[in-house]
Amino acid sequence: MDLKVYLEERRNLVNRALEAYLPAVRGPAFRVVQAMHYSLFVGGKRLRPILCLAAAEAVGGDPGEALPVACALEMVHTYSLIHDDLPAMDDDDLRRGQPTCHKKFDEATAILAGDGLLTEAFHLLAAAASRFEGREAMLLEVTELLAKAAGYRGMVGGQMLDLMAEGRKINLKELELIHRCKTGALLTAATRSGALVGGGNRIQVAALTSYGERFGLAFQITDDLLDVEGDAAEMGKAPGMDEQRQKATYPALVGLEASRQWAKRLVEEAMAEVESFQDRAAPLRELAKYLLVRRS
Amino acid sequence: MDLKVYLEERRNLVNRALEAYLPAVRGPAFRVVQAMHYSLFVGGKRLRPILCLAAAEAVGGDPGEALPVACALEMVHTYSLIHDDLPAMDDDDLRRGQPTCHKKFDEATAILAGDGLLTEAFHLLAAAASRFEGREAMLLEVTELLAKAAGYRGMVGGQMLDLMAEGRKINLKELELIHRCKTGALLTAATRSGALVGGGNRIQVAALTSYGERFGLAFQITDDLLDVEGDAAEMGKAPGMDEQRQKATYPALVGLEASRQWAKRLVEEAMAEVESFQDRAAPLRELAKYLLVRRS
Repeated sequence: MDLKVYLEERRNLVNRALEAYLPAVRGPAFRVVQAMHYSLFVGGKRLRPILCLAAAEAVGGDPGEALPVACALEMVHTYSLIHDDLPAMDDDDLRRGQPTCHKKFDEATAILAGDGLLTEAFHLLAAAASRFEGREAMLLEVTELLAKAAGYRGMVGGQMLDLMAEGRKINLKELELIHRCKTGALLTAATRSGALVGGGNRIQVAALTSYGERFGLAFQITDDLLDVEGDAAEMGKAPGMDEQRQKATYPALVGLEASRQWAKRLVEEAMAEVESFQDRAAPLRELAKYLLVRRS
Repeated sequence: MDLKVYLEERRNLVNRALEAYLPAVRGPAFRVVQAMHYSLFVGGKRLRPILCLAAAEAVGGDPGEALPVACALEMVHTYSLIHDDLPAMDDDDLRRGQPTCHKKFDEATAILAGDGLLTEAFHLLAAAASRFEGREAMLLEVTELLAKAAGYRGMVGGQMLDLMAEGRKINLKELELIHRCKTGALLTAATRSGALVGGGNRIQVAALTSYGERFGLAFQITDDLLDVEGDAAEMGKAPGMDEQRQKATYPALVGLEASRQWAKRLVEEAMAEVESFQDRAAPLRELAKYLLVRRS
């Protein structure tokens, strides 16, 4: 399979669905909807929705059916970026080379746009009930796991830990916990929810959850490696920022070569988890392999 | 019935449930859980959960069964207060005479605590699935209506409109829209969700929704009246703040006497909506009447 063509096609599918779920309509409170729309469409690889669709496909499900879940994941991801970029948090003016939400609009609007996207993710899931008649318990399970991944047990907790780690040395165990909460939880929720909505059995769901956990950690390690070795033009951001900000990273804690080896092992483990799915898991295998060669 | 005793008993019921759902446990990200806990327990009349339980009771449901829904409403309410108080929004240092979340902790923690409570509300609903076996579709309907009331169609939109109205004159139609979104939506969601979880039929659900809409508007009008006529000690905040901030209010737009008459008519209409429920709606009738004599 051609991963580039596959990703392009899936990105289009996801973008069309997101546009349908959150049209940039005018209305009394149009400003906040505009801000939500801006951040949702200012770029983004759509990695989480694509993982969700691929997991649904791997268990024999219809990726089209999984679109509400996939789009809910992207809304939660986008909300977290908007809030993380706020002056009181990481204080970033640019993301993907474009003004962050509070720079494009203002701080109050950005806080509300984040709140709006987080809420809309749950609205999208619950409103999909009519499409999942007889499978409401599954939809509630997906809702629960998304909320668990997003809240204080996951992303909110991870961002808190990240802020608390600022300005002090942390060890590998702490670094892993931050990443598991901050990015790993949602990536794992993506494959797990995809497996559930695709109709996977408990063994398949467990395998795709495990794939997601390994993918998530490998994603973070290669992200750290990119910051050391990457090219500004290809990444759309300056490399070396982690060192400049004195952020703990895998290369800084265990060394470059050990980080590369670790990422490679995690990718192999992720691929092994989906071996039994044969051809239907080809996209998941290609996505995992891609982590080791990605340039952005 | 003695409303004071009833309210006290229900507040205790809700507080015990909230404490069980969000224990102030220590853990890696304990700081954000602490902040969530602080704001959730710093005071509050628990009006939304009490309305939800009373609506469940009115249709013959078990109020205890409705507790997860009632507590989810209070979490959404508390999140909205935390974010509205932020420096970028209304910039309030005190609420109910106590430091606001960003004053007690810091701005980043307050943003995350709000995000955490909003997310936890949906977690609570979804995780209640096992208690509602065979009624999953109802639970999803409640989730959808809570998300609709909280998001850009409701509270988020209302706060955006409120911020956009700052410093300019607005008319009565705009004022009503702001309040319907900002406070009315969640109060209406409280009675509607209570009716659904209590097992009400469509006619009962419609009547309790209509009750909630009238209650919500009467609540806002009497809130505005209190700001003109109220006593600082009884309210726990200084009166006259609306005028000082040049905020549009009902008394300012239609006059004191017309506001009083309007609130009275709305309370009568709300009571008429629940007349057919007879004794089981006694608490809802007392709650509506109380709006006209409340001092805080």
